[in-house]
Amino acid sequence: MRVTVLVGGVGGARFLLGLRELPGVEVTAVVNVGDDLWLHGLRICPDLDTCLYTLGGGIDPERGWGRRAETWTVAEELAAYGAEPTWFGLGDRDIATHLVRTRMLRAGYTLADVTAALAHRWQPGVTLLPASDDRVETHVVVPDPDTGPQARRAIHFQEWWVRHKAALPAERFVSVGAEQASVLPAARAAIEQADAVLLAPSNPVVSIGTILEIPGVRDALRATPARVVGLSPIVGGRPLRGMADACLAAIGVATTAEAVAAHYGARRDGGILDGWLVHTGDAAEVPGIAVRAVPLLMTDVDATAAMAREALDLCGVGVG
Amino acid sequence: MRVTVLVGGVGGARFLLGLRELPGVEVTAVVNVGDDLWLHGLRICPDLDTCLYTLGGGIDPERGWGRRAETWTVAEELAAYGAEPTWFGLGDRDIATHLVRTRMLRAGYTLADVTAALAHRWQPGVTLLPASDDRVETHVVVPDPDTGPQARRAIHFQEWWVRHKAALPAERFVSVGAEQASVLPAARAAIEQADAVLLAPSNPVVSIGTILEIPGVRDALRATPARVVGLSPIVGGRPLRGMADACLAAIGVATTAEAVAAHYGARRDGGILDGWLVHTGDAAEVPGIAVRAVPLLMTDVDATAAMAREALDLCGVGVG
Repeated sequence: MRVTVLVGGVGGARFLLGLRELPGVEVTAVVNVGDDLWLHGLRICPDLDTCLYTLGGGIDPERGWGRRAETWTVAEELAAYGAEPTWFGLGDRDIATHLVRTRMLRAGYTLADVTAALAHRWQPGVTLLPASDDRVETHVVVPDPDTGPQARRAIHFQEWWVRHKAALPAERFVSVGAEQASVLPAARAAIEQADAVLLAPSNPVVSIGTILEIPGVRDALRATPARVVGLSPIVGGRPLRGMADACLAAIGVATTAEAVAAHYGARRDGGILDGWLVHTGDAAEVPGIAVRAVPLLMTDVDATAAMAREALDLCGVGVG
Repeated sequence: MRVTVLVGGVGGARFLLGLRELPGVEVTAVVNVGDDLWLHGLRICPDLDTCLYTLGGGIDPERGWGRRAETWTVAEELAAYGAEPTWFGLGDRDIATHLVRTRMLRAGYTLADVTAALAHRWQPGVTLLPASDDRVETHVVVPDPDTGPQARRAIHFQEWWVRHKAALPAERFVSVGAEQASVLPAARAAIEQADAVLLAPSNPVVSIGTILEIPGVRDALRATPARVVGLSPIVGGRPLRGMADACLAAIGVATTAEAVAAHYGARRDGGILDGWLVHTGDAAEVPGIAVRAVPLLMTDVDATAAMAREALDLCGVGVG
């Protein structure tokens, strides 16, 4: 059974850990590239790397991102040179990944090629595809008090998220390059030819939302004969992890499972969802979307696999 | 007193340590760029880095190259990815230098700009100038038995030196790009306006030799009103360090102080030397070159400063 999942970083990668445990399921993950950035001349793809490291056993389980047993010598030396920025956690092991990627990109390989090459080492057990080979970067419009009381500037999402911990008021998000980008053909095909399509419990605005902004993705979600089911990243009115509430507030969506489902919209009404899983005790009512309440806490691989099983069941393609 | 020195890596850097101790001496070093190479997408300048680290107190004193208290995490990870090559010693601290350099070069800065920026941190106490901003790389023509009994191929000098430890027979050296290159204008001016010009006891073939191949350097050495004095890197028929004998053999020059002086040639006869310091007990007789025998072992900074003092004295501009 072919299952295609739209994913972001930490939450998406953990969801894939459970999904890949299900018998007879061939998983393709379409991974957000909106967090990608250039730092110190290196091309960094946080969500792809988090998926590779998590599924390949290399992730730091405490932080949820970056490499286990990481060291920070290069970053300390960059700081000693006064090389900006210093707010991004650039570990030594991680840098090797970025060096391999940057060298391949500069030699003319695509991001999909690079991801496949890195996967040779990590053997993630699922097919990881960047949502696009094109540069699509999430930027955040924030106040710029130094320039004037009404002034605004756009900063990279990572700067907002990591440096400012999402504490600067976000006025809106801009997907730089999205209009000129196109969905990776293999990702489009994976959506259109899937037996089930899932939205991981990832950030609805800057992970799933950025993927949806890439031309061709919504078309593929509308065209696929498979049902499309999402898993709520909001549990009891709070994000499962990260600071998704700050992102939702910026686009005027309440931090509830129901509001996120309504934001995605029912497929029959031009949205993307056929079904929506909410956490036990949460409720959602959106016409055209089948809602089911099940435990949605990814406490371990078994609990996550059970979530994935429920999602596939709601897609009408139950396993085992 | 303005003293300009042509230098390579380890030996050149150690010589500068002594020279900069002399009172009233303003040192400009014209540094070989022939060893420079691209590895893993990083621009590496071994001789410039050795000078920066040695003069800035960051060098590993045991190895003579690379950073003190170095770690090798990134290199181990690159090897885990199967990323070639693995024979170059690419330390974590060192990588930060290469990241800063590569980023600046890609942003359009020249190698001289980059070197000045790196020197802000290391404060070498001398002006370090790359011999050229242009790409001039020493390659080595070696046998290629896999292709045929008479087949030859050219490999980067670093591959020959570091990977093969100079054990592959070198048929000749090629300075790739030298014909299209030109001497750094500031380096030319430093030679032409110096009160004394020295050749450090560096490799006569691939360090000093490569600098001399850059168009404009020999012209400047002929034009300068200063005397030009070299220090022999050959002591008792053996190179002071490194494998300079393998390089000299490839160009048909004997491993003696006299043969190297004759190879450089007397300035009055179209060569570059007015004077030549040989080690106590060695001798050299080359018409037109004033030879003096003094201790030439750079055992510590004081011994090295004494060598530099003798060299300046032979230039006719004795200090203190």
